[in-house]
Amino acid sequence: MHLTPEIPAARDKLLFTPGPLTTSQTVKQAMLRDAGSWHTDFNALVADVRTRLLSLAGLTREQGWEAILMQGSGTFGVESVFQTCVPPEGRVVVLANGAYGERMVQMLKHAKIAHHVLRTAEDAPADAAALENCLAEDAAVTHVAVVHCETTTGLLNPIERLGRVAKRHGKTYVVDAMSSFGGMPIDIEACGIDFLISSANKCIEGVPGFSFVLCRRDALLATEGWARSLSLDLLGQLKAFEKDGKFRYTPPTHVILAFDQALRELDLEGGVPARNERYRRNHATLLAGMDRLGFKPYLNPSLQAPIITAFLHPANAPFDFDRFYTELSRRGFIIYPGKLTQVDTFRIANVGRLFPADIDQLLEAIGSVLSQMSHG
Amino acid sequence: MHLTPEIPAARDKLLFTPGPLTTSQTVKQAMLRDAGSWHTDFNALVADVRTRLLSLAGLTREQGWEAILMQGSGTFGVESVFQTCVPPEGRVVVLANGAYGERMVQMLKHAKIAHHVLRTAEDAPADAAALENCLAEDAAVTHVAVVHCETTTGLLNPIERLGRVAKRHGKTYVVDAMSSFGGMPIDIEACGIDFLISSANKCIEGVPGFSFVLCRRDALLATEGWARSLSLDLLGQLKAFEKDGKFRYTPPTHVILAFDQALRELDLEGGVPARNERYRRNHATLLAGMDRLGFKPYLNPSLQAPIITAFLHPANAPFDFDRFYTELSRRGFIIYPGKLTQVDTFRIANVGRLFPADIDQLLEAIGSVLSQMSHG
Repeated sequence: MHLTPEIPAARDKLLFTPGPLTTSQTVKQAMLRDAGSWHTDFNALVADVRTRLLSLAGLTREQGWEAILMQGSGTFGVESVFQTCVPPEGRVVVLANGAYGERMVQMLKHAKIAHHVLRTAEDAPADAAALENCLAEDAAVTHVAVVHCETTTGLLNPIERLGRVAKRHGKTYVVDAMSSFGGMPIDIEACGIDFLISSANKCIEGVPGFSFVLCRRDALLATEGWARSLSLDLLGQLKAFEKDGKFRYTPPTHVILAFDQALRELDLEGGVPARNERYRRNHATLLAGMDRLGFKPYLNPSLQAPIITAFLHPANAPFDFDRFYTELSRRGFIIYPGKLTQVDTFRIANVGRLFPADIDQLLEAIGSVLSQMSHG
Repeated sequence: MHLTPEIPAARDKLLFTPGPLTTSQTVKQAMLRDAGSWHTDFNALVADVRTRLLSLAGLTREQGWEAILMQGSGTFGVESVFQTCVPPEGRVVVLANGAYGERMVQMLKHAKIAHHVLRTAEDAPADAAALENCLAEDAAVTHVAVVHCETTTGLLNPIERLGRVAKRHGKTYVVDAMSSFGGMPIDIEACGIDFLISSANKCIEGVPGFSFVLCRRDALLATEGWARSLSLDLLGQLKAFEKDGKFRYTPPTHVILAFDQALRELDLEGGVPARNERYRRNHATLLAGMDRLGFKPYLNPSLQAPIITAFLHPANAPFDFDRFYTELSRRGFIIYPGKLTQVDTFRIANVGRLFPADIDQLLEAIGSVLSQMSHG
């Protein structure tokens, strides 16, 4: 079965989703090669990718930082940190205000790791005062974990404020920066982050197949013997890179070649500041246009990252999301369903190889679909 | 950094490695598209791939079988079975005669799952009588696990004989068929297999990025609540496919598009029998040529799968493997180092989009390198 069952279209539909996202042709073309996964050329490329990831974050190995690639999706990367880095008697505080915070809780439950969950509403940032109280009350806590940009809503959590609390109490600080890293500046040292996780198919605009962890070398080396999973053993992964430059287990070679090209194209664009600027322009174009069409964002704008936006279903008319989605798809635009538990929303991301002109086209299509729907 | 640091070559080097391997251009070209990972078209393709995997194995859903894709390399797939399917008080017997059997043992140690290891020498098949004794002595054993084609040497383990023992004792039977499935016929029901694991980048000739598990539905459904990892929760993965056709977590969309194409090309070739026949011809060509060049295989031919072969370093002359490897690489051929603990070997695989004419070219290159090396 083909992706388009009948006659293939000339162009792919544009993905207004938070990743996998629309990538450049040249990123995809980098996959037209078969690389030997143990060969010196490929090992050199992996080493170079790891170094460039650090430099993208303003970090260096000399200052004690490492970048480690992990096979699987972003979730595998986040879980590799918990499965490897929490000691047997450890306890994790998770600050949760959406599906990805709750996913961390699920990981800890599966691994039978003790934890507290500090929940805030899905439209409220994580609460530094609540974290302060929790850490003051329970000295057994070892780790604090939070999602930076909660993809459920696009809400930005205050990772620097939370980090100051975590570090004042001497805790290891884990940040899931899946949908923000590369698209927003993050000062990892100022935030006090020990482990930051992101993935290939988000703001660096590669294709999906692996995640990566930026971490303090000494924090990772201290985890010897704790890993509860072989595949997700982050320390084992680092040791293999350091021993002979190889992945322990088969890497997604083609996906890594695409990522190498994506990093080069991020540099060509002007690095993280330029990419952030493009995403901001995309986002401003989207919000202004959706406002004209009568759609209100779910979040208070002060909490919103310029990555993905949840929009409320229209208040004063019935709204058939399935039809809306299908009609937009017919016109070549893929949007994202909502993921909120209490409120009906849908989501539109503005990341990937998208420009304000693409947002304008999406907005025109939305206008046309709305008009069609209002005529029955 | 480019894969070829200076001027890129017109053609990739041929990979005589057990995977990632040399794939067809059309398989790679299938990755030149960005698919929405939650979109109905992609979900339909995933459903179709799962059904075709079952049919490749001669199984059907109606007879109680499931095919489940799992992100990550083959190792992630094998570990997903252990992490999900062994009960808290379970005990696993591993039959080990190489690195991949030992890797299973490492997985069980990490997950703190009780286990016995029945080792045979690296050139001897797994021992059904030893398994019989072990199961007769220890009724607490719940699972039996073995590697079909041990990639360390290319040794084929007697999975049908072992399966009869396992089933007579009522144990769950797990077979790692990573480097054999798709390239050799396997009668899964006759072998009594409950869980069989393989991966995208082996004999189906796709690119790396996910593994897959073929399993008895009732055996998997019985594991509710046992999964020790969220990412590697095989039952959770099945439930998500059944709920709405989606992967729980981001799938490697491009890698799956390539796999869809690889399955189509396997059909075009004539299915598993025809592919097995090509691999047999490749293997016979390789062995005859290597014999003429003075190289002896490590294994007794009766134990050898036509997938990958370990060759002994020449007996009566010093042999510089690094130089041998590098000179072959310069000529466009990538071979594989040895992985045996006691004996010096190197390995040559004959799987992937390779034909006897490619083996002939490799043999000519080996002859030329040997002649160069003998002249200092």
